[in-house]
Amino acid sequence: MTMQDARTPENPSGAAEAQRKPGWHKGYVGGSRPDIRVPVRRVHLTNGQDVTLYDTSGPYTDPTIDTDVRRGLPPLRENWIISRGDTEEYAGRELRPEDDGIKHTSPRGGLKNLDAVFPGRPRQPRRARGDVAVTQLAYARRGDVTPEMEYVAVRENVSPEFVRDEIAAGRAVLPANVNHPESEPMIIGKNFLVKVNANIGNSAVTSSIEEEVEKMTWASRWGADTVMDLSTGRNIHTTREWVLRNSPVPIGTVPLYQALEKVDGKAEELSWEVYKDTVLEQCEQGVDYMTVHAGVLLRYVPLTARRKTGIVSRGGSIMAAWCLAHHQESFLYTHFEELCDILRTYDVTFSLGDGLRPGSIADANDEAQFAELRTLGELNRIAKARGVQTMIEGPGHVPMHKIKENIDLQQEICEEAPFYTLGPLTTDIAPAYDHITSGIGAAMIGWWGTAMLCYVTPKEHLGLPDRDDVKTGVITYKIAAHAADLAKGHPGAQDWDDALSDARFEFRWEDQFNLALDPDTAREFHDATLPAEPAKTAHFCSMCGPKFCSMRISRSITEQFGAGESLTSEDEIRDGMLAKSREFAESGNRVYLPLAD
Amino acid sequence: MTMQDARTPENPSGAAEAQRKPGWHKGYVGGSRPDIRVPVRRVHLTNGQDVTLYDTSGPYTDPTIDTDVRRGLPPLRENWIISRGDTEEYAGRELRPEDDGIKHTSPRGGLKNLDAVFPGRPRQPRRARGDVAVTQLAYARRGDVTPEMEYVAVRENVSPEFVRDEIAAGRAVLPANVNHPESEPMIIGKNFLVKVNANIGNSAVTSSIEEEVEKMTWASRWGADTVMDLSTGRNIHTTREWVLRNSPVPIGTVPLYQALEKVDGKAEELSWEVYKDTVLEQCEQGVDYMTVHAGVLLRYVPLTARRKTGIVSRGGSIMAAWCLAHHQESFLYTHFEELCDILRTYDVTFSLGDGLRPGSIADANDEAQFAELRTLGELNRIAKARGVQTMIEGPGHVPMHKIKENIDLQQEICEEAPFYTLGPLTTDIAPAYDHITSGIGAAMIGWWGTAMLCYVTPKEHLGLPDRDDVKTGVITYKIAAHAADLAKGHPGAQDWDDALSDARFEFRWEDQFNLALDPDTAREFHDATLPAEPAKTAHFCSMCGPKFCSMRISRSITEQFGAGESLTSEDEIRDGMLAKSREFAESGNRVYLPLAD
Repeated sequence: MTMQDARTPENPSGAAEAQRKPGWHKGYVGGSRPDIRVPVRRVHLTNGQDVTLYDTSGPYTDPTIDTDVRRGLPPLRENWIISRGDTEEYAGRELRPEDDGIKHTSPRGGLKNLDAVFPGRPRQPRRARGDVAVTQLAYARRGDVTPEMEYVAVRENVSPEFVRDEIAAGRAVLPANVNHPESEPMIIGKNFLVKVNANIGNSAVTSSIEEEVEKMTWASRWGADTVMDLSTGRNIHTTREWVLRNSPVPIGTVPLYQALEKVDGKAEELSWEVYKDTVLEQCEQGVDYMTVHAGVLLRYVPLTARRKTGIVSRGGSIMAAWCLAHHQESFLYTHFEELCDILRTYDVTFSLGDGLRPGSIADANDEAQFAELRTLGELNRIAKARGVQTMIEGPGHVPMHKIKENIDLQQEICEEAPFYTLGPLTTDIAPAYDHITSGIGAAMIGWWGTAMLCYVTPKEHLGLPDRDDVKTGVITYKIAAHAADLAKGHPGAQDWDDALSDARFEFRWEDQFNLALDPDTAREFHDATLPAEPAKTAHFCSMCGPKFCSMRISRSITEQFGAGESLTSEDEIRDGMLAKSREFAESGNRVYLPLAD
Repeated sequence: MTMQDARTPENPSGAAEAQRKPGWHKGYVGGSRPDIRVPVRRVHLTNGQDVTLYDTSGPYTDPTIDTDVRRGLPPLRENWIISRGDTEEYAGRELRPEDDGIKHTSPRGGLKNLDAVFPGRPRQPRRARGDVAVTQLAYARRGDVTPEMEYVAVRENVSPEFVRDEIAAGRAVLPANVNHPESEPMIIGKNFLVKVNANIGNSAVTSSIEEEVEKMTWASRWGADTVMDLSTGRNIHTTREWVLRNSPVPIGTVPLYQALEKVDGKAEELSWEVYKDTVLEQCEQGVDYMTVHAGVLLRYVPLTARRKTGIVSRGGSIMAAWCLAHHQESFLYTHFEELCDILRTYDVTFSLGDGLRPGSIADANDEAQFAELRTLGELNRIAKARGVQTMIEGPGHVPMHKIKENIDLQQEICEEAPFYTLGPLTTDIAPAYDHITSGIGAAMIGWWGTAMLCYVTPKEHLGLPDRDDVKTGVITYKIAAHAADLAKGHPGAQDWDDALSDARFEFRWEDQFNLALDPDTAREFHDATLPAEPAKTAHFCSMCGPKFCSMRISRSITEQFGAGESLTSEDEIRDGMLAKSREFAESGNRVYLPLAD
C-alpha cells in the first residue's frame, strides 16, 4: 500500500512524497456537515491555477491517513447507518470451511475462524430491523436525502434533491451495503458521470490475498469506480473479506460462482438453499452489488443452439445447464421475490445478469438475447416494487451499427434502470487488443446512455490479467467513459480537456503530464525522445522540432489577433524562436538539427 | 528485411519458415491476365478449411521472391504503364544537394549524384506525353478498365466496372504515380474496405535510411494500406528514394515540409517556384499522393485567434505564417490550377489538407474549420475538372457527438470525394493513449463513410514513434477500420470474425491465434498463463478453468438442440469434461485446482 503521492495543506510534511509527482494533491470538498468530506484530486498548475478532478483512490492517496491493509479502512459511513436507527447488529451466519472452498473431508484442514485470518475483524454483521427495506431507494422514495446522497451530489456537482429524485425513479443506484461502511458513496445512472468497473479475481496458484487487495487498490487508483471480485476456489471468503475491509469503492460479486464451489462444480446440484446461504454470507460481509442471472429461462436455452458461440456468460451457462438438468425454471427466477427481500435487508443492489449475451459479432441482438432482456425488465419491476436498487447488465460482442438498439431497448423495457455493459466488443478479430475493440463500443454505448462500463483488459479471451493489464483496462475505459461524458454534454466534463489543451498550447509540459489520465506514461514517452529538463519548458516538442512547431506559429497568431495588437513581424517571431532553439542547443541536446547549419 | 513467414505451393522448401507461424501463407488470386496476381494472406485452419484475408505486406512475405532493399522491388506495374502509350521517359530535373537538406555552403559536402546513394536506380522518370491527364480518373471517365482497376476489383471482391464507376464519379481514388511502378494497386473510397495510413518520418539523429525503409515495411506488414513519409532535414530526398523503391503500398508526402527546408525553415521565404520545384522532384521520384494545404486563406487565419489551441497542423501553420507575412492568398491557392496540371502529368493524387483542423475538443467544428472545408470543396471541383484524383483530409480532435457532422458536411461539400481523417481524437485528457482516444473516433467516422483513417500512435503529442508504437498504431487502426467495415455491412467483412469465433467456440486455439490481427501477441498472452502445448487444445481456457468453462457447457447445448438428438445427460457432459481435466492435470499443469480435491 505505497500509493501515497499526495499532499494536503494539513500535511506540509507530505512534501517529500509530493516531490515525486509535484502536480497531484489529495483534497476534499465539504458538504453540509463535518463528516461529509468528498475526496478530489487537485492538480496545481504551474500558472498558479488549480484543476479539481474526480477521485476514486480512497484514503491510500491521503498522506494524513495511516492505512494498514491488516486493519482495514476507517468505517466512513458507520455513523450514518447507525443513526438511521433502522438496522441492528446480530450474530450472523456461522462461517464454515466450505466458505473458503475447503472440503469437510480435506486432509489439509483450513479456515476455522475468520478472526484468525483477518485480524481485527471490526464488527458483527448488521441487517434491517424487521422486514423492511433499508435501501437508498426506499429512503429516496419517502423523500429523505441521506448523507450518502449528499456525498454523491457534491462528487457530481449536482443538487442532493436531484440525486434523490434519480434514485427514487430507479434511474440511478447508489450501491452501499450496510456492512460495507468503508465505501465512499458513488452513484450509477445515465444522468451522472459514466462509471467504470474493473474485475479482479484470484487464481489459486498465482495470487495471494495481499495481491488481490493490491489489485483492487491499484484499479481504484487509476479510476475504477467499482470493483467486482470474481475470485473462485480456495480462500474465496477470506479474499473477499480483505478486499471489502480495504475497499473505498463499492464491491460487486457473482454469488453463483461461490455457490457452485460449494457443490463441487456440479451445476445440477445447485439449489436455492445453497445459493441463498451464499448470498447471505456475502450480504453479511458487505458486498454492495450482486450479479444474478435470473433471466435465463428454460425456454430460452434452445434459442442459443444455433448461435455461432452459444452461451459465453459463465453464470448464464451454469444456469442453462441447471435448467436442462432439472427441466424447470431456475431457482433464481422462482425464488426471485425472496431474493429481493434478502437484498433489501442489507441494501445490496441487483445487477441483473445477461446470461445470454452474445459472445460474437454473429450472435449480436438475437432472439435469445432480447428474450432474456424482456425477462430482466419483468424482474426489474419486481425488485423496484420491493425496494431493491437494480441495474441491468448488457453485452458483449456487438458491431457498431447494432449498439444503439441495445441501449434503447434496455431503457424502454427496464424503465430507464441503469445499464451496465461489458464493452461491447465491436469486432472479434483482435484477441490481445480487446480493450480497444471494446473501448470503441463502450464509448458509444456510454454516450447513448449506459451508466457503467465493465472494463475489458488486453488478456480478455486469453488469460488472467496482471497488474499492467488491469491498469491498461482501467485507463482505456476511463477514456471511453470521459469521451461519453463529453458527448453527453455532462456539465463540467470538458473543463478537464480544456485545462490540458491550454497547457499543451502554452507549452506547459509538466501541467500536461500532471493533467493526463496517466501522468507517468505520458512523462516517460516524452522523456524517451527529449529527456532533458529544458525540453519540458521549450516552446516546441519533439515531433516538429524548433523549425516546424505549429503551436508556436499559431500562438503568434493568437497574440496578434487575440490581443488586437499590430502584427508582430515574422522576424520577431523568428528571433524569439531562435532564442528558444539556442537555449535548447546550449543545454547540450542535439536531437534535431539546430537552425544554423 | 526478414519478414518472410509464408509458404506457397510453389515453394515447399518454405516449410521451415512456415513452421514458425504454421497458419500464415502467402497466396495469390488471379485476374483475367497472367500479370494480375493479387496477394492474399491465407490461413490454413486445423479443421482443413482456409480463410483468405486482405494482404498489404508485399513481396516481403513471399519466400519465392528474393527481395533486396538495395535493389528495390520488382516494377509490378511497369508494363501496364508503358503499354498505355501515353507516357514518355525524360531526363528529369537535376538533383541538387539541397534536395537532401544540404546547403550549398555546407563544409561537409553531401549528395552529388543520387545513383551513388541508391545503387541500381532503375529508370529515368516518366511523364505524360503532352499536356494530358494520365490519371486513373481520366481513364475511368473515358470508360477504360485499367489493369490497376481490375487488380483492386479482385482485391475487394467487386466487379472491375464498379471500381471504374466509383473512380469516374470521384467517389474513390487509386493513388498510383507512373513513377512508382513497384506499388500494388489499392483503392480508397467509401464503398470499399476502410483503409489505414501510417506515418513514418526520420529524425536526423536517431534514424538511418535503412530504419525508415524498415518502418515502412513493418507498417505494411501489419496492415497499413498507405504510408506517408514525413521525413525532414538531412537525407530527405534519399530517404524517400529508398522508401519508394521498396514500397508495395502507395506513398504520400507533404511537399511543403521539404520546400521549407530549402528556404532554411523561413516560412515567409517560401515561393511558388521553390514549392513547384519540390513537387516536381517528388513527382519524378514516384510519390503517389501529396497533402496540399491550399485551403488556408488569409481571411480564415484570424478565425483561429480565439481558439483554445490555434492552428495545430504543421502545414496549416506554415501557410498561415506565409499569408500573414505577405498579406495575400497563398501560392498554393493562387497557383492551384497549375499544380493540378503538374499532378495529372504523373497521376499524383491530391490529398487536400485541413490546415485549420481543430487541435482540441474545444475547437471542434468551429468557423475556421468549416470555412476551410468549403474552400476544399471548391478546390476539389477544380482538381476533378482537370482530371486529378482527389481526396479530402479531416480532423483532428472532435467529441463523439460532433463527429457525424464532419463526414456529412464533407460528403456534401466535396461531392462524395474520399474523406481521409486523422482519428478523430474523442478527448484531450489521455496523452500516451491517443491511439485509443482516436481509435474510438476513427471507428465511428469510418462507419459513417470515411474512406481512409490516418493512424495515431501512443506517442502522439509526446515524441517520435518507434517500431512498437508503429505496430500498436497500425493494429489499433485496423481494428477501427474493420469495425467500420462490419458496421457498414461490407460484403464478406464478417467472415473473418465468424472464422475466429468458430475457432474460439471449438477450442481451436492455434486457429484463433493465426486468425488474429496480431497472432504473436495473442499467443504470447495465452502462453503467459497456460504455456503448455496441451492447453492449446484443451476444451477450456485460462479464465474459467475446467469447472466453469461456459463455452464447454454451451457446446453441449448446441450438440443437443442443434443436432436434434435426445438430451445428452449431464453425467456424460461431466465425464467428458473430467476426462479433459485429467488430461490437463496429467500434463503436469496445475494452474487451477483439479476437480478432485
